[in-house]
Amino acid sequence: MSYRAPVKDMLFDMQELAGLQQLTEQIPAFADFGLETAGAVLEECAKLNEDVIAPLNVDGDRNPSSWKDGIVTATPGFKEAFRQYAEGGWQGVQHPSEFGGQALPKTIAAACGEMCNSANLSFALCPLLTDGAIEALLTAGSETQKSTFIPKLIDGSWTGTMNLTEPQAGSDLALVRTRAEPQGDGTYKIFGTKIFITWGEHDMAENIVHLVLARVAGAPEGVKGISLFVVPKFLVNADGSLGARNDAHCVSIEHKMGIKASPTAVLQFGDHGGAIGTLVGEENRGLEYMFIMMNAARFGVGVQGIAVAEASYQKAVAYARDRVQSRPVDGSVKGSATIIHHPDVRRMLMTMRAQIEGSRAMSLVAASAYDVAHHHPDAETRKQSQAFYEFMVPLVKGYSTEMSLEVTDLGVQVHGGMGFIEETGAAQFYRDAKILTIYEGTTAIQANDLVGRKTTRDGGALARAVAAQIEKTEGQLALRDSAASQSAAKRLGAARGAYLDAVDFIAASGKTDPNAAYAGSVPYLLLAGNLVAGWQMARALMVAEDKLAAGEDADFMTAKIATARFYAEHILPRTQALRDAIVDGAESVTALALDLF
Amino acid sequence: MSYRAPVKDMLFDMQELAGLQQLTEQIPAFADFGLETAGAVLEECAKLNEDVIAPLNVDGDRNPSSWKDGIVTATPGFKEAFRQYAEGGWQGVQHPSEFGGQALPKTIAAACGEMCNSANLSFALCPLLTDGAIEALLTAGSETQKSTFIPKLIDGSWTGTMNLTEPQAGSDLALVRTRAEPQGDGTYKIFGTKIFITWGEHDMAENIVHLVLARVAGAPEGVKGISLFVVPKFLVNADGSLGARNDAHCVSIEHKMGIKASPTAVLQFGDHGGAIGTLVGEENRGLEYMFIMMNAARFGVGVQGIAVAEASYQKAVAYARDRVQSRPVDGSVKGSATIIHHPDVRRMLMTMRAQIEGSRAMSLVAASAYDVAHHHPDAETRKQSQAFYEFMVPLVKGYSTEMSLEVTDLGVQVHGGMGFIEETGAAQFYRDAKILTIYEGTTAIQANDLVGRKTTRDGGALARAVAAQIEKTEGQLALRDSAASQSAAKRLGAARGAYLDAVDFIAASGKTDPNAAYAGSVPYLLLAGNLVAGWQMARALMVAEDKLAAGEDADFMTAKIATARFYAEHILPRTQALRDAIVDGAESVTALALDLF
Repeated sequence: MSYRAPVKDMLFDMQELAGLQQLTEQIPAFADFGLETAGAVLEECAKLNEDVIAPLNVDGDRNPSSWKDGIVTATPGFKEAFRQYAEGGWQGVQHPSEFGGQALPKTIAAACGEMCNSANLSFALCPLLTDGAIEALLTAGSETQKSTFIPKLIDGSWTGTMNLTEPQAGSDLALVRTRAEPQGDGTYKIFGTKIFITWGEHDMAENIVHLVLARVAGAPEGVKGISLFVVPKFLVNADGSLGARNDAHCVSIEHKMGIKASPTAVLQFGDHGGAIGTLVGEENRGLEYMFIMMNAARFGVGVQGIAVAEASYQKAVAYARDRVQSRPVDGSVKGSATIIHHPDVRRMLMTMRAQIEGSRAMSLVAASAYDVAHHHPDAETRKQSQAFYEFMVPLVKGYSTEMSLEVTDLGVQVHGGMGFIEETGAAQFYRDAKILTIYEGTTAIQANDLVGRKTTRDGGALARAVAAQIEKTEGQLALRDSAASQSAAKRLGAARGAYLDAVDFIAASGKTDPNAAYAGSVPYLLLAGNLVAGWQMARALMVAEDKLAAGEDADFMTAKIATARFYAEHILPRTQALRDAIVDGAESVTALALDLF
Repeated sequence: MSYRAPVKDMLFDMQELAGLQQLTEQIPAFADFGLETAGAVLEECAKLNEDVIAPLNVDGDRNPSSWKDGIVTATPGFKEAFRQYAEGGWQGVQHPSEFGGQALPKTIAAACGEMCNSANLSFALCPLLTDGAIEALLTAGSETQKSTFIPKLIDGSWTGTMNLTEPQAGSDLALVRTRAEPQGDGTYKIFGTKIFITWGEHDMAENIVHLVLARVAGAPEGVKGISLFVVPKFLVNADGSLGARNDAHCVSIEHKMGIKASPTAVLQFGDHGGAIGTLVGEENRGLEYMFIMMNAARFGVGVQGIAVAEASYQKAVAYARDRVQSRPVDGSVKGSATIIHHPDVRRMLMTMRAQIEGSRAMSLVAASAYDVAHHHPDAETRKQSQAFYEFMVPLVKGYSTEMSLEVTDLGVQVHGGMGFIEETGAAQFYRDAKILTIYEGTTAIQANDLVGRKTTRDGGALARAVAAQIEKTEGQLALRDSAASQSAAKRLGAARGAYLDAVDFIAASGKTDPNAAYAGSVPYLLLAGNLVAGWQMARALMVAEDKLAAGEDADFMTAKIATARFYAEHILPRTQALRDAIVDGAESVTALALDLF
């Protein structure tokens, strides 16, 4: 079975939950990007990903990118597939048209990103990082930097990287030591070692545009002394042609558990006299720019979680329909049946699809908020949407990736012993997914962001405003007669109550007893993510009931209702234990003395 | 950091929770196996596993067993280590002395097994399967079979395998097709293909004793027509020397996600005229014998879960003490600190240790019940203990292995990006652990056993009797003043209530609405396992408080109290969501029509 893009579910979420219609009505630039265009884009995107990129996924795992004498060669077929990806305009899908992009809303682009990541997580990392580089240059680059690099990045001639991590500086960027020496001609020479650089060296493009965090001599200690530089692999002449090879070399790539086709490079800057770079924006504001880029990348990694979970789910369903084993407990089939007949297999598949659909809806609602925040004519609307989007980023990143670990585990489990055999392919998703809770900020880093910047800073006001919106949905559900709506109303209310207890606790203790607040940071993130995804599923439930009653697409709507109800009854109840851990269990997290572990 | 056996925790569990002292007092055969002997055995066992077997674990992953022309060669060093293991008497630790075993209680042997599995899961599988073969022969073998095979299996000259699975027959053994033709001389010729045979071919021993499920011509369909045969790799002459090579050949080994050093063989029986075997016990009773052996193996796999989790925990603690990154949120350290200072890292490590200690205590209490069931002079006591042990087997297997997935995931997560790099070693535990929820019966198969044979068959009587014991512990906790005891009493009571709701629901629906009962089978197993492990932690809490008050081993007792409290406040609350899923969510598991997935 190969991957089939869930176009219908994506369009449903965009139209019914994420307000695609309103985007077209309220934002002039998006006037042409309604449901019909979205459908056409998604169908086209699906073709490329299903037919060209997905078939390379297993190859990439078995025959990863390889390093020799500083040269990294991608898995055979990747280079050609990347060429098709670029020629189709997919790298520019969400970027401005003045640089050659399609300027589509993120609401549509996010779905395109999901497809590429479902098809091939390793491959999709290259465009994902390039998106990040484009974002950073758009935000803080000079006009020359923009015109030099962005068109080439968008047309896929070149790709981009993010160079943050150093051996001693991972989550803690205050410890960055790479240094930049001004040359007096507007350029800097960069010296240092960067590790974990995804697609940091490869043969899929003519040039690689490294965005590098480094310290200018004399800069303040800590994060306030970090600047951002563009350091291309090949220097670029004034006419845009490629010049000399820069002093940025890949000295090795990592041997990883998953995403093996994506080379993870150790880059050495300046071992032969200094790598030449130019400053992005102002000195010592590098982290600020990087955070803008990182918020985009974090959202993208959240989408990766949904994507790998979807791929795992599709494979598991296909196996469950095919594998014959044991009689159903209800006697509905005489003799042995396909395992999809067994209640526990269905429980696993339902868990997978409920989690995926919940996270997908959450991510597209967040994407829509981004679009409003960036393009709406009304400043106040922009501001509110930006705040909501920023609140959602750690949930999309943290929750969707943690959920992908559960889903890919179930994906292996559905396969039984065959799941553990590499040839089956289910194991690759399990191995690939594990990076997602780590890179672009671990789940704990997302949770710190949620607790610190997004909750305690405003005393929990925004967090409570989200709860108030959820309460409205409960009110709508409560007015409906169906068992599914009644059940969802009850469970959503209980989960919101758990969430509000957690918000109160964290907002109160954040400044007075930070150990207590941060002891519950990840449980709080998981609680909030679970709730917000469940909220979207509850909204979807109401739409689906109405459309079913109107005779629209009965199969899809029936499935949505069943899945939303499953979410309410099986996933939402997990919020209570998270609440208890946060509110009642803070002390026991840090009670054990460090030397007693 | 290399593995250090948790001898102190094991001895604490044996003595204070599993009643080692009572075993020595009440069972004459165990009179000499008190705490002192247990301590000496464990120290000796620890040495071998820490110094000899653990250092081969990474080698086994990088340089797995290999197949060439039917010959399987184990990772260099494994053969010599197995020799030391055998010569130390460890294969016979729990087997009868008349065949050369040590005849130690399972309560001690289980701890020895944990150590070997922590040191090297792949290696330990060979003794684990050999234990199964010994059990089967002890249970149902003829005197000749016993005297021919068991001493050689115990002294490590030969090893054993379990041959159940065929391509079409995994969880569903009714589909076994391998056939046995009686030769009229007391032997049978065996024809068929067996897959997933752990250590099914290798060079660590002179001979391999395959126990094979097959059908005698004319046997009934389904599981009632399956017989068990001994089919040695080399036939054995009357004097015990090795004879001709039998027609049982390894045609390939699998390429797996983990436990790579353990060869997983496809065995072809009878392609060259028929593999010669002898019947174990009576015809058509093979599954019954296999179940005895499988109960032993299932317990053993549960211990593997605890073991790999312990190894993962130790590595994570070592990294968390070493890695410097970021300032503590409470300002307790100026500048960057080791990451063990961060609340979320401590939450992860506490979750790991609480889960491990809870499951370990549960497994040793179960092992003790096995010892009573098999050796106590009083028949009624034996019967009750056997029933309790049989109830515990699916919990030990199902819960401990599922928990090992959570723990090994956290083990990678604590390492951040380094966790995803294979050289670090944390990823191996994550990959290795995933087989544990699958082989020897998936978690769903364990859960079916718990629902069917162990709960609905007696209308939930035994399940409720366990709850009544837990209620007594709550009563004892409630009488104590400490915050930890009060908290544990409250949480244990709530979890027991959740469990009783589930028992009532499953006992009531098991026969009338099997889809509803089995829809909640895995959640019910996880609920019961969580509760029983938490109950043991609560018992441990009281002992530790008393010993701390008496001035005994303050560090250990303080840590035990903190860990038990963490379990009560962070792990036990998860039972509520499981209860809700079982009791309120059964319908939504099977609501979605099969063609709508």
